Amino acid sequence: MSSVAPDVHSLRTPDPLPARFAAVRAATLALLDGLDAEDLAAQSMPDASPGKWHLAHTTWFFEVMVLQAHAGQAPLRPEWLPLFNSYYDALGARHPRPQRGLLTRPSLAQVLEYRAQVEARVLALLDRAGDSAGTAAREAIELGIQHEQQHQELLVTDLKHLLAQNPLRPAWRAAPPDAGASAHGPLPPGWLRRTEDGPALIGATDEGFAYDNERPCHRVWLRPFELADRPVNCGEFLHFIESGGYDDPRWWLSDGWDAAQHGGWRAPLYWERQDGGAWQRFTVHGMRALDEAAPVSHISYYEADAYARFAGARLPAEAEWETLARRHRFESMAQSAAAEPPCEPAAPVAAAFGGRVWEWTASAYAAYPGFRPFAGAAGEYNGKFMSGQMVLRGSSCATPAGHSRSTYRNFFPPAARWQFSGLRLARDLE
Amino acid sequence: MSSVAPDVHSLRTPDPLPARFAAVRAATLALLDGLDAEDLAAQSMPDASPGKWHLAHTTWFFEVMVLQAHAGQAPLRPEWLPLFNSYYDALGARHPRPQRGLLTRPSLAQVLEYRAQVEARVLALLDRAGDSAGTAAREAIELGIQHEQQHQELLVTDLKHLLAQNPLRPAWRAAPPDAGASAHGPLPPGWLRRTEDGPALIGATDEGFAYDNERPCHRVWLRPFELADRPVNCGEFLHFIESGGYDDPRWWLSDGWDAAQHGGWRAPLYWERQDGGAWQRFTVHGMRALDEAAPVSHISYYEADAYARFAGARLPAEAEWETLARRHRFESMAQSAAAEPPCEPAAPVAAAFGGRVWEWTASAYAAYPGFRPFAGAAGEYNGKFMSGQMVLRGSSCATPAGHSRSTYRNFFPPAARWQFSGLRLARDLE
Amino acid sequence: MSSVAPDVHSLRTPDPLPARFAAVRAATLALLDGLDAEDLAAQSMPDASPGKWHLAHTTWFFEVMVLQAHAGQAPLRPEWLPLFNSYYDALGARHPRPQRGLLTRPSLAQVLEYRAQVEARVLALLDRAGDSAGTAAREAIELGIQHEQQHQELLVTDLKHLLAQNPLRPAWRAAPPDAGASAHGPLPPGWLRRTEDGPALIGATDEGFAYDNERPCHRVWLRPFELADRPVNCGEFLHFIESGGYDDPRWWLSDGWDAAQHGGWRAPLYWERQDGGAWQRFTVHGMRALDEAAPVSHISYYEADAYARFAGARLPAEAEWETLARRHRFESMAQSAAAEPPCEPAAPVAAAFGGRVWEWTASAYAAYPGFRPFAGAAGEYNGKFMSGQMVLRGSSCATPAGHSRSTYRNFFPPAARWQFSGLRLARDLE
Amino acid sequence: MSSVAPDVHSLRTPDPLPARFAAVRAATLALLDGLDAEDLAAQSMPDASPGKWHLAHTTWFFEVMVLQAHAGQAPLRPEWLPLFNSYYDALGARHPRPQRGLLTRPSLAQVLEYRAQVEARVLALLDRAGDSAGTAAREAIELGIQHEQQHQELLVTDLKHLLAQNPLRPAWRAAPPDAGASAHGPLPPGWLRRTEDGPALIGATDEGFAYDNERPCHRVWLRPFELADRPVNCGEFLHFIESGGYDDPRWWLSDGWDAAQHGGWRAPLYWERQDGGAWQRFTVHGMRALDEAAPVSHISYYEADAYARFAGARLPAEAEWETLARRHRFESMAQSAAAEPPCEPAAPVAAAFGGRVWEWTASAYAAYPGFRPFAGAAGEYNGKFMSGQMVLRGSSCATPAGHSRSTYRNFFPPAARWQFSGLRLARDLE
Repeated sequence: MSSVAPDVHSLRTPDPLPARFAAVRAATLALLDGLDAEDLAAQSMPDASPGKWHLAHTTWFFEVMVLQAHAGQAPLRPEWLPLFNSYYDALGARHPRPQRGLLTRPSLAQVLEYRAQVEARVLALLDRAGDSAGTAAREAIELGIQHEQQHQELLVTDLKHLLAQNPLRPAWRAAPPDAGASAHGPLPPGWLRRTEDGPALIGATDEGFAYDNERPCHRVWLRPFELADRPVNCGEFLHFIESGGYDDPRWWLSDGWDAAQHGGWRAPLYWERQDGGAWQRFTVHGMRALDEAAPVSHISYYEADAYARFAGARLPAEAEWETLARRHRFESMAQSAAAEPPCEPAAPVAAAFGGRVWEWTASAYAAYPGFRPFAGAAGEYNGKFMSGQMVLRGSSCATPAGHSRSTYRNFFPPAARWQFSGLRLARDLE
Repeated sequence: MSSVAPDVHSLRTPDPLPARFAAVRAATLALLDGLDAEDLAAQSMPDASPGKWHLAHTTWFFEVMVLQAHAGQAPLRPEWLPLFNSYYDALGARHPRPQRGLLTRPSLAQVLEYRAQVEARVLALLDRAGDSAGTAAREAIELGIQHEQQHQELLVTDLKHLLAQNPLRPAWRAAPPDAGASAHGPLPPGWLRRTEDGPALIGATDEGFAYDNERPCHRVWLRPFELADRPVNCGEFLHFIESGGYDDPRWWLSDGWDAAQHGGWRAPLYWERQDGGAWQRFTVHGMRALDEAAPVSHISYYEADAYARFAGARLPAEAEWETLARRHRFESMAQSAAAEPPCEPAAPVAAAFGGRVWEWTASAYAAYPGFRPFAGAAGEYNGKFMSGQMVLRGSSCATPAGHSRSTYRNFFPPAARWQFSGLRLARDLE
Repeated sequence: MSSVAPDVHSLRTPDPLPARFAAVRAATLALLDGLDAEDLAAQSMPDASPGKWHLAHTTWFFEVMVLQAHAGQAPLRPEWLPLFNSYYDALGARHPRPQRGLLTRPSLAQVLEYRAQVEARVLALLDRAGDSAGTAAREAIELGIQHEQQHQELLVTDLKHLLAQNPLRPAWRAAPPDAGASAHGPLPPGWLRRTEDGPALIGATDEGFAYDNERPCHRVWLRPFELADRPVNCGEFLHFIESGGYDDPRWWLSDGWDAAQHGGWRAPLYWERQDGGAWQRFTVHGMRALDEAAPVSHISYYEADAYARFAGARLPAEAEWETLARRHRFESMAQSAAAEPPCEPAAPVAAAFGGRVWEWTASAYAAYPGFRPFAGAAGEYNGKFMSGQMVLRGSSCATPAGHSRSTYRNFFPPAARWQFSGLRLARDLE
Repeated sequence: MSSVAPDVHSLRTPDPLPARFAAVRAATLALLDGLDAEDLAAQSMPDASPGKWHLAHTTWFFEVMVLQAHAGQAPLRPEWLPLFNSYYDALGARHPRPQRGLLTRPSLAQVLEYRAQVEARVLALLDRAGDSAGTAAREAIELGIQHEQQHQELLVTDLKHLLAQNPLRPAWRAAPPDAGASAHGPLPPGWLRRTEDGPALIGATDEGFAYDNERPCHRVWLRPFELADRPVNCGEFLHFIESGGYDDPRWWLSDGWDAAQHGGWRAPLYWERQDGGAWQRFTVHGMRALDEAAPVSHISYYEADAYARFAGARLPAEAEWETLARRHRFESMAQSAAAEPPCEPAAPVAAAFGGRVWEWTASAYAAYPGFRPFAGAAGEYNGKFMSGQMVLRGSSCATPAGHSRSTYRNFFPPAARWQFSGLRLARDLE
């Protein structure tokens, strides 16, 4: 993780880590605008967590993974540790996940004070130690920052899910004045191609931050294929609905068909048909008319897969996605002609490949060849979830700035719908 | 309901109803001491409701059953009606009960304001109309007061259950200074007898307030029996536990044995054994050492029934309970010699028969012969629950003053444990 | 149980018990006509048992309750005992009830041989001991005979339920040639009255066989009431359906409404609407046109209760039912004028009160005052099921001849529908 | 599928297909030895099917996929079609899978007659048409043969599971006289290596029969690795148990840990510890002492994965497995030196790679690049199950002779344990 390690310039340039840490922590609090203690205490389903729990858990992470592990500091409130441990078996007992919404104590005010105290301790550690703070501590802080950013997105999706359960369909925040349906209808997508039949290098190098599951950089053999230059939009998905897509088992995986029947799925999550037949979507701004040009979102892997089959296409493999996403960060397509460009430090994806919806891929979430988990307790961060989940690539409207990478592997179970999840079409070239 | 109807004295004496209404409403708010908005928003299980919901529902009851039904007033917030309707099918749609804890909006502050507005309207109605307010409206207000008192007890039991789910075992309020184990150990109970073999009159007369399910007054044939003069206490129940009572199917009903095995019951709800072997109970004051002289509480019907069988006794029929409870309101036992004293207006029970724990009876909750439900929407109040539940008699430490009657029929499913529910032994005399 | 005990005539008249035993056992085998080993091995739901299991369990009962308990005989196949013990905790381990359909071994042939061997042993015991066989053994044999008769009816209802799960809707036996809809439509019922307001004696005396739950004879105070002179028929119930009865919560208990919604109930069990709109019922003769004059059957307590409310009536209390059923065994109504006729030995009910469908009553199944369970292992026969069930009275088309009594208390959970269960209307007289 | 298509020799050599068809059908019936109609009618869990259902479904397959699709023949019993359709949505309604054990009609005798009639029709079709029978029909017959072989193995595993539910632990067949523990203890495995870092060709060519999911032949990039030369054996797995493997979350995937806790897993399925501590396994020969040298079997993917992590190794990717399995079919290792040998017609695997237990791989079951489902109704055969399952490679003691291929992809959900499923260790070479 050399980007955060001391270098020869460190005596002259200010350490960027404290400011980055403070900014990300402040960004979490900024999300709370429009919510009160009651909103932040409730849990809408076992898969979601209360906002207050996210606030506390991300703080617990710094306390345990940084202050305790790397500075030997005793926890502020030892009796809280089991409450805010998410899933780290190596770190002791845990409160059952489905009961996080019953933790009315500690209160929001106590949790906010806990946040401030732990932040002060982390900053003091950085300040006191300066650059001589061990690389391990700095790496743990960087991991904590990335972790906090992940939970920022989860806080948004979990709160949206909670508010959607309320028959009043309350808005979290007022819509910006210019919000509304796009001025013009959707155009057919263009197609981006990789015509080579040969290996591609995917995964993150050791430079810069990346999760353990993005490494190592390795070769994958790819056949010629093409990807749409944008995600499937709501108008296109509406056509699937109106063509009877939810009633036709031909398009569906067997598990998907069962999930759709059992769950009564007739449209993406949060879509509601008004009495007059018009479709609306529940959003953080309350109910809004469906914008056909916007990417379809809040669909399961099963719906994404069914739509792709309906459309005569398929979902991309994650290696296909990453290969073209990396290519299209360069303005000149000439550079992309190399059949096997080297792996490179993780870098933000191009606009065409992120920022709107996470994109389900056809790849089950699994270890890359040669995968090594993080050391210590962080070893439970990613590896133990490598079954029963599918990889999503890109980033969404709820992903914090700076938290997207072309190598980033998001993952959720195939029936999950409460994330900002959509799809991009892929096709074989032959 | 002649006790609240105008009489010849009404021009000279102030109407007691407004003050009574205001006092009961204020008593609800007084319960909130020691709780905050988060505590009041959470729901610990489908059978329990959030405190905020109790605050709103009891207000909804006055708005719909009084202001709308008897004064034609439009609801303040029509969109809230489905949220706070508990189970009245005649009054339209309802939010699903298990999801009451997800209603973070309206907020506690909004609900408290709603309470104040509806209270003002009810008082204005009483003031404006004076004694000329229809008997029906006054009766509906009386029903609303009784209803609010029921919910005061439920608010206590539901909040206690919620706090018990928190591993921190938080106290709601500090214990009073003199609280603690009784000074002396439990004595064997004395026995109160009815030696007659003949009919008894039970149930409420038409004087005074009573729920529809307490009427009509009717005859039940009773054989000679005796009842203990106090409920079973914790020390006695501990003997059952230590004698292997939870492991011996001889004592248990078949359904009870299944419930105990499936639920992992090894002691009453809220009892916890410390490492050293000492028993504690979770209370509204946090964890407390077990007081062996206190009545056992938080047991299911099945546990009550099993204990009685273990003790060589049985549970009382509700008619047995009511007959002796009425007798023992009189100091002179001579008066109780009448085999069949007349029914009388409902009146508070004697200290020996209430105030500590509700007492499970052997009687399934069913209509009395000649039962007539309340008129109008209140007809759903009691009658439709007359299956699958057992009657409890008496009152508990959480029952508001003035809300106990010798004819009162509380009822819960036989597996319910989160109420202050205990038992009193009964035996045949022959 | 003096009816089976030796009396002064016993030296001169042959002992009727061996013949009765042999006849009841043979009647069980006669039921198997039209079934094969596969039909007898399957279990359609946890509440039902395979036919083979009934054959083995009734044999186990004689082996354990008679041969082992009263003659000290070792079981023929000790390893089978846990397989065929239904619910007797005092008699050791039991195979889980929902898995009875997985016991493909022992085979039907083995079970039939087991039946023959145990029968021979029981007859040998009776023969060898003659009248000097202990009363206890003879009483146990009588209990085993009654038990076998109960299982004959269960074998019919369980097999009918099994065959109904088969989309082929197979007939068990060919319909008799004259079967078909009644020639004339249903007439309104007449009403049978008890106009006294006073005690009635109900329950069985000690003469003749009765289950422990039918005793002791005791007084119940009854108010004036009337009962219909026949059960509700299919045409009447069809009117309830066509009047939207299944869609109107006014008629339903809260638990009943939930059960109906959750179970998708739109008609009694086994009713199916054909494409043309005509109703049919699945019967042991396959699908048959609905006979509107036949008693409605295969309804739950909830449906019976809802129908009664819809019809402006109510269900009878079991004491009401028994009182009128006993009266109407006498041709002369004069005799029935006595307000409180004595209890009498159990005797068959009049035609108007049995033989077609079991009739749900409004009475929860509970101990009579002074109830004493049978001694020994048979003590688990009835008492431990006294919660969560409702009493049915009468008998059905599947009840063996000789197995109905005016004091007989059948009982099932309120949602059960696979028995031949219907209802009779009751009304208050005032 | 050219192996079954007519070629220039067809006029001179007898058509092998009729004999092959007859032999495979006869092999199914030979499996029934030791079972009776009751054994073949029961269903032990929703994932398993009754033996009778397997007999009928494999016949239904020939009737619908061959006789109806390619010869226009009407079905013998149209009303049976929904009963024996497994999961083909394109072929109409289906009886619910969990209720297959309730189909006591048609009887076993009827199903066996149905088998004979359909067999005669298939043979007549082959005979009548001779070589002029369309390739499509012959291909459909070949698919039906392969399908029948798959169900032969399922019939064994399903029946074994059924018999294991019986507390009598009945043996299906007597053990062969020489059966018993291996004479000598297990040796450490040897290791088979592929040292190249480069692409391998895997998958089936178009020659010979293969399922659609084995095609097309395609390149996968492999890094250097080694595989054990035999599956993990019972002694090694016992060491995992005795080392506390089932109690240590470090070894387990998160989903696996949950499955093990929820299912109470303490050892492989069918292992039982005797009172004296000795381990036994339930087998088709009844309970047998554990043979430590035999491959461990009846473990889930989660247990396989946990064991591999415990052993400092990992599960193989399916491409790794196939590459080495193909190499080791050749005696001379020299031939295997080619980094990328061509794909070849499917052929039986070497003894070291099959015949004992299926081997869980680390590969989720997914489409190969360029996957095309079979045409027509057979398109539902494999493709729609490509989610939520893991690939197993090799074959087991229950796999019919001739039904194993180096390219064969078996697949089951990761929690499945009732197949003969074990594992082989893999390690990276670096």
